[in-house]
Formats: sequence, C-alpha cells, structure tokens
Amino acid sequence: MGLHLPEANVGLVRTHYWTFAQTPDELPLDCGRTFGPITVAYETYGTLNAARDNAILLIHALTGDAHAAGRHLPTDRKPGWWDPAVGPGKIFDTDRYFVICSNCLGGCMGTTGPSSTNPATGQSYGLAFPVFTVHDMVKVQAALVRHLGVRELACVAGGSLGGMQVLEFAIRFPFLVRAIMPIATTWRLTPQAIAFNEIGRTAIVNDPNFHDGNYYDQPGWPDDGLALARMIGHITYLSEEKMLQKFGRQMVDHYGARLHLKSKFQVENYLQYQGDKFVRRFDANSYLYLTRAMDLYDLEEDWGTLQNAFARIRARIMLMSFTSDWLFPPAHAERMHGVFQELYKDVVYHNVVSPSGHDSFLVEYDTILPLMRSFLNAE
Amino acid sequence: MGLHLPEANVGLVRTHYWTFAQTPDELPLDCGRTFGPITVAYETYGTLNAARDNAILLIHALTGDAHAAGRHLPTDRKPGWWDPAVGPGKIFDTDRYFVICSNCLGGCMGTTGPSSTNPATGQSYGLAFPVFTVHDMVKVQAALVRHLGVRELACVAGGSLGGMQVLEFAIRFPFLVRAIMPIATTWRLTPQAIAFNEIGRTAIVNDPNFHDGNYYDQPGWPDDGLALARMIGHITYLSEEKMLQKFGRQMVDHYGARLHLKSKFQVENYLQYQGDKFVRRFDANSYLYLTRAMDLYDLEEDWGTLQNAFARIRARIMLMSFTSDWLFPPAHAERMHGVFQELYKDVVYHNVVSPSGHDSFLVEYDTILPLMRSFLNAE
Repeated sequence: MGLHLPEANVGLVRTHYWTFAQTPDELPLDCGRTFGPITVAYETYGTLNAARDNAILLIHALTGDAHAAGRHLPTDRKPGWWDPAVGPGKIFDTDRYFVICSNCLGGCMGTTGPSSTNPATGQSYGLAFPVFTVHDMVKVQAALVRHLGVRELACVAGGSLGGMQVLEFAIRFPFLVRAIMPIATTWRLTPQAIAFNEIGRTAIVNDPNFHDGNYYDQPGWPDDGLALARMIGHITYLSEEKMLQKFGRQMVDHYGARLHLKSKFQVENYLQYQGDKFVRRFDANSYLYLTRAMDLYDLEEDWGTLQNAFARIRARIMLMSFTSDWLFPPAHAERMHGVFQELYKDVVYHNVVSPSGHDSFLVEYDTILPLMRSFLNAE
Repeated sequence: MGLHLPEANVGLVRTHYWTFAQTPDELPLDCGRTFGPITVAYETYGTLNAARDNAILLIHALTGDAHAAGRHLPTDRKPGWWDPAVGPGKIFDTDRYFVICSNCLGGCMGTTGPSSTNPATGQSYGLAFPVFTVHDMVKVQAALVRHLGVRELACVAGGSLGGMQVLEFAIRFPFLVRAIMPIATTWRLTPQAIAFNEIGRTAIVNDPNFHDGNYYDQPGWPDDGLALARMIGHITYLSEEKMLQKFGRQMVDHYGARLHLKSKFQVENYLQYQGDKFVRRFDANSYLYLTRAMDLYDLEEDWGTLQNAFARIRARIMLMSFTSDWLFPPAHAERMHGVFQELYKDVVYHNVVSPSGHDSFLVEYDTILPLMRSFLNAE
C-alpha cells in the first residue's frame, strides 16, 4: 500500500442520471415542503468492492458539477474539476477506491434545479423551486450513495460549499463515513461573505431580463446580472497577493489613451471575461438558491453549539484552510479544530501557506495532494 | 497655545461658489484637453490672519462634499462630515485657523462635474465630461486656496481619495503647505480595489436606465446600478470584525419563514438601505469618473519611483492607517513611511488599532483626534 505506482488518468467517462423521490416518496425538505421527482447527475470512477466499503464521495463547490475527473470526449480541452486527485495511483486511487461525484441539488448541470421542468406544469420551476438547505443537499448525496450499493464511505471530501456538505454529511450520517476532508470551509459564513452573496443576488434580480425568475422562454436572459455576480465572486476567491502577481496595474485596451473613461486595467478585463464566460455555463436562478443555502448554513443555529454538532461525527477528520483565504478565513478552521480536539476526535488540521486565496484547493496541488494522501492512507 | 479651551461647534454655515477657468483661461488637464468654466462649491470656517498663513485645507473622500462642519439649517439632523474635528477649541481650531473645504472636481455637490450643464450645449456633460486625474483635482483645490488669498497652508488633511489629494497637493505645490495628514490612503490602489471599483462601474453602466450617461432628462435614472456600486463600496469600507459586531447573522424580514428565498439577513437589509439612501444624494456619472481617478492614481507611474515623488514634499507629514482597513492596507502606509524616512523627511506614522475598517477616520474620533492634535500643535 505504501508503494506509489505511476499515476494515470481515468480516461473517457460519462455522466449518469438517477431519478428518485417520485410521488408518493417525495423528499421532505427543511422548509417543510416535500419535493420530487429529483434526478441526480453523477459520475463514478473505479469499482465498488465486495465489502461495499471502498467508496469515496467528492462534493463540488458552488459552480461545479458531477464531472470530477477524466474527459467526456477525447477532444475536451479540460478534464474534470479535481482530475489531479482522481485516477489510478492518484490520491483518490481508482485502483483501490470507487469514487463518486454528483451535481448537487438545485444545480444546473444535470441534477434537478430551478431550470428543470416541473412535471406538474410543463414549465421550468424558476422561483417556484423550494428553498433548500445544505442539509437537504446531503440528503440527496446520501440517497445516491445508497442507491449505488455503498455500505460505508472511506472518505467524503470537498471544498467551500462542498466542504459545508462534507461536514453536514458526517454529522447527519455518522455511521456512513469513516473519514472526511472539509477544505476551505466553515460551519457558517461571515456577515461579509453573506453581504457579497447578497450583492451578487441583487445584481441578478435587478437585471431587466430576470422577469422574476421566469426568463427561460424569453429571448434575453439575466446575463449581465449573473456576470456581475461572478465578477464579485472572483475577487473574493482570489487573494490580494495573487491579484497583484497576476495583474499588477497593467492596462490593456487603451482606446488610444490611458486617460479614457473606458480604458481598462488588466484586472478589469479579466473579470469581465470571467463573468461573460460564466453565463454560458451557469443558471442565474441556481446561483440565487445555492448562495442562499450557503448563507443559511449555521451549525450553531442548527445544534445550539458547535460541540453538539461535531459530537455526532464518528469519522476521522482532516481540516484544511489556506492562509490567504479571506472568504473562509483560517480562523474558522482553527475554531473548528479546537472543538474537535475538545471532543477528543481523531483530527488533523493543515493551515496551508498559499497565495491563491479561497481557490487554493483547485490550484495548489503540489502542496495539498501529499497532505491528503497521507491522511487517507493512515486508515 | 497648550491650553485647551472648551470645544464648541461652528454653528450655522453656508456653502459658497466661485467660478474660474473661464474662456480663454481654461484649466489644462492631464488628458490634454483644457476645461472650463469650473465652479467650485466651498465652505470656510474661522478667519484668515494678516500673514495669510493660518489656513487649513480639508479634502473629502469619494462621496463627500464641501460641508465639513456645522449645520446649514438649525433643523439639520447631522452636521458636516468632519464636524468633531472643526470648531473653536477643536483640532482644527477655528479660533486659530481659517479652515477651507471644497467639493472636488467632477463631484455632484456643487462643483462642476458630469451632471453640470455644459454652457456650450445647454445640456449636462454626461460622458462628454473630460477624464480627470487626482492631479487635476488638486489643481482646482490650489486655485481656490489662492483665490481666497491664502499665502501658505498650515495643513492639508483628508482620508482615502482625499488622502491621495493630500499627497498630490504636497508634491505639486511644495511651497504652499507646511504640514500634511494623508489618512487611510495610498500612492496607488491594489488590483483588488480597482476590481471592486470596476464592478461598481459595471453595475452602473449595465443599468438599463444609464443611457450611455445621458439619463438626466429621462424619467428613470440608473439608481439600481448606483445602489449596487454603493453596496459593494460599503462592504469594502467595513472590516469583517465590524460587520460581525454590527450584524452578526441576525435575520430580519422573515416573510413568515427563515427558509424563504427573500428572507434577509440584517447585513443584507442594511446594505440595501445604504444603497437606496445613497442614490438620492449622489450622481452615477460622478461615481464613474471619481473611482476612475482613484484607479489611475499611481505615483510610481507618474514619477518613476516613490522616492522621486516624495522628494518634492517640504511639508511635515503625519501618516495614519488603520489595522482593519483592507481596502487601503497598513502595508501601503508602512511603505510610504519607509520612503519618507529614507528621504529624512519630518514624518510620523500611526497605524491605529481599530475595528472600523477603512471608515475609521470618520468614526474613531477618540483615538485619532488626539494624534492629529499633537501633530498639528508641534509646529
């Protein structure tokens, strides 16, 4: 087991779909409504063993999808979102593990969300979609895991909103998981992070093409608002240091003169490009619902104290934060680490020195993969 | 002079207007155009002495105005923006000093800006207003000071964009000023701060009521965009600590249920209130031009090095930054302090411990006023 074989990629993969919560077995949500049917888009890599206990669940962040590794077509420019971590000989070794990743509830990458058609009306749900919580999101993750025949998960891992779901999964399904890696995450957002989310939502709702969420059959969609929300997000994901490295104060697009109102700094150009690119792949209503689920997540409100919440966890825990992450600050991970220690949990905590801000878990592979490997192999 | 008399307020004051740069004596701007006429809105408190050297120039920040102290009407709910610092016996002691404050070029509080009428066309300038720089802004400040008969300023003080003008004033008019207080400011913005400004501008320009800046005679103005820009600004002015103190994660406006998409956290409500309030007093085009002037300010680009720029300054200097200010970080003030020391300038630097973020200079009077007083009295 200590032998590291050469790493390889998972190759060509495809997304699968599973539908559950059909009438009358709809899923009870925290808001009091029941909801269904729910289709889940998911991918798997590797094979479930006979004991059905070698599965690993990866959970994506706010704008991710079920496509964690490999390519759908040989011509795909980019592989899945955590490809450096998934494959034969990699951390999440598909020769040993059965790796699962699904698009989360309310998303827009194949799992039922506000852009899906409501079978009762034949129309997209739009804002008629129920408000859901991180707890509701992991109910769907757990249903999928059981549907795939898994008896026990060797690990659940993810960053940011994915990390919130990792914590919630271990709290709600303590007997289903042996180890967790909540990365760049928190038990609740700061008011500052909520405020940034709110500004993104305001930009979407103010867009004249929003039409109270019923824009799907309109000629124009709320692209400007969604792009602006993404631009705000991008600033909060990057650290100041990274922005300085990446852009400095270089100007582009001079319109013939630096002192032109429309002249752009490189950082402006980059953000507008990112915003415009984002609207081609993401749904504005999903953005509203998913950021709201993040805002509402608060283990202290749900359980009285963090101690009460974390006392339920039976899994080994590897917490990871990043020094330059000001959206999910290391102080939050430190606090969680302290509570886990008070409770005599089997916990390790890495505050990784990184200039890459909140996005470090999708960037700083040289640093994070060895830490993840040694934690996972310590089983 | 060491005796502190009881402090008093300046009482009722009024705003004055002075017009200069009439044809053919228009003001040459950095962009290459000449511009005029320019009307300047200003207030003064106290009396110029016979030597004409007891004047103090206060320079407001991005959204401020000429009304630094006192009240226009006995019923005014609030006094001027730096009232705790201006009056008989206060730091800027109107029994000793002749205090001047003017609305800056491009503003919308009485000084000529994009919302002013272009006498050549009878229409508002809108985006036909020339792009101006911080250097252009202090040319107007200096013209006013000379018009008022001042031979030498005892001090020039201001925070944020006002602080940039303070630095620029001392660099461009070294023989006109004996002491400066650049507060919560920098010789150039970080890419992060530029990015926040750009998002605010994008929100304004995307607003369907913007009409390429010619909204003044339209029924609707780009209020949503401007409010959003203000909301972004507000987050960057406050520290995370202050937001936590101020709002926590309290919810308001429950629509009968916490799990309602439109339920609001207090911080969201506050930001929307601030945004809505702001649009009643500020002009969207001024916001575009003034934030652009901030972005463009870069003493290293203008002078090759910070040493070259600061070598020109003859005034005593009191630099002040705030520990929780992440928009104009203390590291920038430290860098400037180091350069002043290299140049053997008469400089003091206070990095004030404050939870109030960038806005500290408008809030933390108990801490900052004694520091300002002892610097000013050391003359």
